[in-house]
Amino acid sequence: MKPTTSAPPTRKDGHHLFQQVYEHIMGRMERGELKTHEKLPSVRSIALDLQVHRLTAFRAYQMLKQNGKVYVKDKSGYYVSPTPSSDLKEEANSNSELPELPANQPIPAYAHLRNELFHVQQIPVTYQLAQALIDPNLLPNLFLSEHVKQVFDKYPKVMGTYGPVSGDEELREFLCGYIAKSLNIPLAANEVVITSGSQQAIDLLARVFIRAMDPILVERPTYSAALEIFRNQGARIFAVDIGPNGYDLDQVEMMLKQHKPRFFYTNPTFHNPTGYTVPASQRKRLVELAAQYRCLIIEDDAFRDMYFEEPPPRPMFVYDTDGWVVYLRSFSKYIAPGLRICAVIGRKSVIEPLLIAKSLADNGTPLLNQKIFLHYFQSERMQQHVAKLRTALQLRRDIAEQELAAASDWKWVQPAGGLNLWVKLPPALSVQGLLAESLRQSISFVPGVICDPLSERNDFIRISYCFINESQLREGIKRLVRTRV
Amino acid sequence: MKPTTSAPPTRKDGHHLFQQVYEHIMGRMERGELKTHEKLPSVRSIALDLQVHRLTAFRAYQMLKQNGKVYVKDKSGYYVSPTPSSDLKEEANSNSELPELPANQPIPAYAHLRNELFHVQQIPVTYQLAQALIDPNLLPNLFLSEHVKQVFDKYPKVMGTYGPVSGDEELREFLCGYIAKSLNIPLAANEVVITSGSQQAIDLLARVFIRAMDPILVERPTYSAALEIFRNQGARIFAVDIGPNGYDLDQVEMMLKQHKPRFFYTNPTFHNPTGYTVPASQRKRLVELAAQYRCLIIEDDAFRDMYFEEPPPRPMFVYDTDGWVVYLRSFSKYIAPGLRICAVIGRKSVIEPLLIAKSLADNGTPLLNQKIFLHYFQSERMQQHVAKLRTALQLRRDIAEQELAAASDWKWVQPAGGLNLWVKLPPALSVQGLLAESLRQSISFVPGVICDPLSERNDFIRISYCFINESQLREGIKRLVRTRV
Repeated sequence: MKPTTSAPPTRKDGHHLFQQVYEHIMGRMERGELKTHEKLPSVRSIALDLQVHRLTAFRAYQMLKQNGKVYVKDKSGYYVSPTPSSDLKEEANSNSELPELPANQPIPAYAHLRNELFHVQQIPVTYQLAQALIDPNLLPNLFLSEHVKQVFDKYPKVMGTYGPVSGDEELREFLCGYIAKSLNIPLAANEVVITSGSQQAIDLLARVFIRAMDPILVERPTYSAALEIFRNQGARIFAVDIGPNGYDLDQVEMMLKQHKPRFFYTNPTFHNPTGYTVPASQRKRLVELAAQYRCLIIEDDAFRDMYFEEPPPRPMFVYDTDGWVVYLRSFSKYIAPGLRICAVIGRKSVIEPLLIAKSLADNGTPLLNQKIFLHYFQSERMQQHVAKLRTALQLRRDIAEQELAAASDWKWVQPAGGLNLWVKLPPALSVQGLLAESLRQSISFVPGVICDPLSERNDFIRISYCFINESQLREGIKRLVRTRV
Repeated sequence: MKPTTSAPPTRKDGHHLFQQVYEHIMGRMERGELKTHEKLPSVRSIALDLQVHRLTAFRAYQMLKQNGKVYVKDKSGYYVSPTPSSDLKEEANSNSELPELPANQPIPAYAHLRNELFHVQQIPVTYQLAQALIDPNLLPNLFLSEHVKQVFDKYPKVMGTYGPVSGDEELREFLCGYIAKSLNIPLAANEVVITSGSQQAIDLLARVFIRAMDPILVERPTYSAALEIFRNQGARIFAVDIGPNGYDLDQVEMMLKQHKPRFFYTNPTFHNPTGYTVPASQRKRLVELAAQYRCLIIEDDAFRDMYFEEPPPRPMFVYDTDGWVVYLRSFSKYIAPGLRICAVIGRKSVIEPLLIAKSLADNGTPLLNQKIFLHYFQSERMQQHVAKLRTALQLRRDIAEQELAAASDWKWVQPAGGLNLWVKLPPALSVQGLLAESLRQSISFVPGVICDPLSERNDFIRISYCFINESQLREGIKRLVRTRV
């Protein structure tokens, strides 16, 4: 059998070959495959090995030397430096964040992979105020069950095959019509992709649009898991404040002008975590700015239908004429979170690469879930359910606010929709201390700092009033405000 | 409102800051934000802008100069070079692969993102021989529908909430017991993660274990979408041949020794695309080699239950004592592909980072699909179904072989299980020509070259005999072998 050789090296977009060689050697040193004072392979042999030009390998070695990662001896040999030093503070800092790696196990490349929100939500507690999920008891489960049986009668082979990668044709046609009608804009089914929840939509868009060091813009505060995704992609993250009255558009423009972000990830309607809504007057202008500065807007609109008094302003997407907004509409949160259905709506330049990323990520969202969603969403019962749900959520918001009022120095702005209260604690109260003590009392909430792109503001907490029932909610917040730290 | 600044730059693991600055400037030039002969920001201002040390920015600019990307004028100013040149052939080659980018649309960072298999399978044809999916008519759809109704009676709130990120507890406990018993090895539920198909499992493991330029090992040929995933992560791909008698273990050992791959992605049982099975005698030895050379084995075992005469050898996973094998067991392919259920089984060092990647990718596989799968898989009917399915698939394989026999110079090895025939065409016949002409006749198949990690061997095709019914299959292959090009 003739030995096969490596595939020709492919250039990872944005990474030049000599940098890849550098990184490769660094990886081998970090994993202990090359030890202190060990001689590196010669330039000639590493070039052969990695199938790169000798100059490429030489350039990488020069860089390793410049950065103090290796030293030269006998004019020809490169050796691993005893203490990988760096004259640059940033590099030293970020290196020091790497945890110690065990020697005798498979070592993940991304040792820093993390998701703080996931860790907080993993902790089992009685008074769950960290989950921005709707209480399953508020969902029309029995009706849904009956309904699903009809879906199977109608599509007996629904579990027998994959759907298209872009999503079930019938569902996309329907959503297209629904959104075109409710927002009064023209749309085609090939401008819609179905993803497994908005989480997947954010992840795939990040993979499509970010490469290392690319600037992106987010709101401050923002959805923490989105932040982790952007960080993992190596984005440079800039932030604009979101307040009860929306953005400071001058600040937004300055950011767009100065940093030329690849995209602006926004959640302008019943914003997570604050509950704020960007006013209609700002939306059109923001889309103009996006087109002017060539910045894609990712508009995450998961809470639109969860309003309490009156419907929110129309999404920014409706003002977009040139394809600078991609619209994420997750319906499943308030219908059937277990289904994981989100519609991503955008123009060809966004949808085409997104589809390829989706095909590689999971080959398409399960067909069954899409058919169930489609038929339920079309039913009259669904509309009744949503109306009832609004009332129930408003009631829970009111309960939460009543109980929070006992803490006279805790401040928040009443949200007009959504699932969360964003509460400012008095300076004397430590969020970390409160969280630790709360967890001991089986109460959990989200510490606001994980929602801060700058990881600075440590005086807010997010309380989700949607997950536990009314009496538990009342009791949980009563106990929370009484907690002494 | 006080202006907020950027978050401190985070080091994307494996990418040093000056490289990130370099890439960032390259990106701006490629997107036309910095035009030919335009002056770059000064070192001082870019350092301020990117929040890096001035030396870091300087180093990046020096690199740009060295690589001919910019030129220096008036001793102080850096300007974009007219023709971004490179003295290195590889870099020039990979640059030329980048498509022309439109100026007035959001531009994906990964312009080279692609999935050839997806493109072939997208083409609608009558005689579909490119889909390695089981004919939905062979699946017990009516029983499944009845069955699902019971699932809803049993778990009325199953659509109301997310399951745990790692997967439904009950399902993981069950699979744990099932696999522990059938393979006679001890397992704990926290060693199991449920993913949305094995496609997602491969994607998440690639994200966890590969960084740019990392060597990995695959079989030659192999699953083409896995190749695309690994390429997108920037892996350097090495290959070992797989033949009717498995691997050449000397070649495998040489590869492990020489290239120190991060993992070996294997599909040793009714291998896709060839149908070959690695013999029992090699499996134990391969696991020993993996431990010796500290290489994770990703064992993709999607076709295990699709055997025709006798069950295949036990998986490599059973020989693993030190955590060097992660086992992907997708059951859904032959039960209900629309459910998208795969179990990833491994030790803590693999499972922990995988879980975080899963939480960021989609927050967990839908609970409904897991419960349906669980209850169906436990039923007696399922076992009967699988037995019948084996017979039906074997019959289709036989039909495919009978018809292929008409082409006396097409060669293949009879597979003992799985869904595909791997057919070697005579040298005179061009695969691309045959595919083009076949598509005109509404027949499609997978050209073997996309399964070749080295993109060289253009004399094989993959024929999937599982998707269309017997008479269509007979007719489709009859027409295929008669196709004149």
